[in-house]
Amino acid sequence: MRMPLYLIGLGLGDAKDITLRGLEIVKRASSVYLEHYTAILNDTLEEMEQLYERKVILADREFVEQQCDGMLEEARTNDVCMLVVGDVFCATTHCDIYLRAVEKGVQVHCIHNAGIMTAVGISGLSLYNFGRTVSVVFFTDSWHPSSFYDKMGENLKNELHTLCLLDIKVKEQSIENIVKGRKIYEPPRYMTVNQAIEQLLWLENEKKQNIFNLDTLCIGLTRVGSPDQRVIAGTAEQLLKVDFGPPLHSLIVPHPGQISEMEMEMINHWRIRD
Amino acid sequence: MRMPLYLIGLGLGDAKDITLRGLEIVKRASSVYLEHYTAILNDTLEEMEQLYERKVILADREFVEQQCDGMLEEARTNDVCMLVVGDVFCATTHCDIYLRAVEKGVQVHCIHNAGIMTAVGISGLSLYNFGRTVSVVFFTDSWHPSSFYDKMGENLKNELHTLCLLDIKVKEQSIENIVKGRKIYEPPRYMTVNQAIEQLLWLENEKKQNIFNLDTLCIGLTRVGSPDQRVIAGTAEQLLKVDFGPPLHSLIVPHPGQISEMEMEMINHWRIRD
Repeated sequence: MRMPLYLIGLGLGDAKDITLRGLEIVKRASSVYLEHYTAILNDTLEEMEQLYERKVILADREFVEQQCDGMLEEARTNDVCMLVVGDVFCATTHCDIYLRAVEKGVQVHCIHNAGIMTAVGISGLSLYNFGRTVSVVFFTDSWHPSSFYDKMGENLKNELHTLCLLDIKVKEQSIENIVKGRKIYEPPRYMTVNQAIEQLLWLENEKKQNIFNLDTLCIGLTRVGSPDQRVIAGTAEQLLKVDFGPPLHSLIVPHPGQISEMEMEMINHWRIRD
Repeated sequence: MRMPLYLIGLGLGDAKDITLRGLEIVKRASSVYLEHYTAILNDTLEEMEQLYERKVILADREFVEQQCDGMLEEARTNDVCMLVVGDVFCATTHCDIYLRAVEKGVQVHCIHNAGIMTAVGISGLSLYNFGRTVSVVFFTDSWHPSSFYDKMGENLKNELHTLCLLDIKVKEQSIENIVKGRKIYEPPRYMTVNQAIEQLLWLENEKKQNIFNLDTLCIGLTRVGSPDQRVIAGTAEQLLKVDFGPPLHSLIVPHPGQISEMEMEMINHWRIRD
C-alpha cells in the first residue's frame, strides 16, 4: 500500500485557519513539517503544536532544497504532512516537491486553503477584472528591476487591475557570509506598502510611462485573513504616509477607468479619511 | 455593542473543508445561512448540519436578492453567519451583501477559504503566469457570446495562460414561466469541459483568430478540492472524448509558447494516456 504525502494549506491567518479535513490528517500523520520560508503565519510554533497535538518540524529553504528526500523516503511508508502557509500551490517550490514525490512513487494529496490571490477580493474589486499578478522585489543599491512596473503597464493597457505581492526575504545570507561559507542569516525583511509605492514612483521617474504617480489610486492590504487585517484605499501620496503595521502587506493598483460602480462603493468604504 | 455578520468561506470540497475558525463561529451563531446559487458543495445539507451542530438555512438567489434585509436586521443584535462555497469574494453578490450590511451599521467579518482561482495551481501552472480569468457562459440558440474567446486571445497576446470558469445555471426560470409568473425552475445545469471546448471551437470557426483549435493543449479540472478531483491534460481533441464526470468543471488553456520546464513536467504528469 502506497502511503501519501499530504500538502496542506494553512490559510492566511494563524493555526486556527486550518480546515477540519487538514487537521484530521495532521493529527494522524507520522511527521508534520511546516514550510517556513515563502510566507509567515501569525502564530508561534508552540501554539500550532498545541492545537494540532503534534510536533511540527520547521522546513526552511535549505531543508526543502536539500533535505526533502528524507521526508519523501519517510512518505513511502508513513503518512507525512507538509504544511504550507496560504494555498498549496502559491509557490512553485511545491510543484517541485510534488514531482519529486511522484518520482519516488509517493502519492500526493493536496488540502487547499485560502490564498492571497482570492482573499484580496475583500478590496471589493472583482477577481475577474485583474490582469496578471506581479511580484514587487526589493531594489538593491545596484539592481532596480522593473518587470513589475512593465507588467502593471500591460495590465493597464488591457484595462485590468493589478495585484502586487510584495517581496519577502527570509534566511538570506549576505554575500560576505556566502563567500566565507558562514551560515549566518540576515534578519527577515518584508516589503511594506510604502516601500512598494516608493519603488513604483522611482521607476515612473526613470521610465516615464505614466503608469504610476502620486495621484494613482491604490489599495493597501495588510495581514489579509487575520483578525487584525487592514484595507486602506487612497492615492499613492496618501498611502505613503500611512503606517500599515506588521507584515504581510499587499498592494492593489486598480485600473482607474475600469472601476465598476459596486467596486467604487467598496473602495470608498475602505478610503482613508484625511 | 454591534454584532457582526460573518461571511464564511467553505472551500471547495464538502462540509469538512470549513476552517476551525469558521466552525467556531458557526457553532455560536444565532442563525446560519448557506448561499446556495453560485456554486455547489459536495455534501447534503443534513451532513452539514450534523457536523456544524446547527440548522442551516438555504439562501438561494431569490433570498439573497430580496430577503436578505431580514438577515441583516437580525445581524444587528445577533451573530449571524452566511456560508459561501469557495472563498468569500469569488462572487460580487457578496460585495453587495457586505455594503448593505455596512449601511445598516452591521460589522462584517470574513473568514477566507480555498477558492478555485488559486486551487487550480494543482495543474502545475504558475499562478503568476495567468492573465485574466474568463467566464465561459452557455450558448443559447440565438445567443453566442464571444467575450471569453476574445479575452483568451488577449491573454495569448500577452503571453499568459487562461483559466476558464464554466457556467452554472441554478434555479433558472424558463421565459414562459417568467411570463406566467410561475415559480417553476429548470433543472440545474453545469457546463462540462467538453461543452466549453465545443463552444471555443465554434467561436474559432466563426472568428478565425487562431486562438483555439483541436490541437490546442488544454487542462481539464473537475471537482478541484474534492477527494475525487481529476486533472487531465491533452489536446482539445483528446479532451473532447473524456467523460469528466460530475461538476464542477474548469478548463485551463496555457499559452503554448510560455510553458516553463517545471510547468511542462507537471502537465506531463497529468497528460492523458491514449
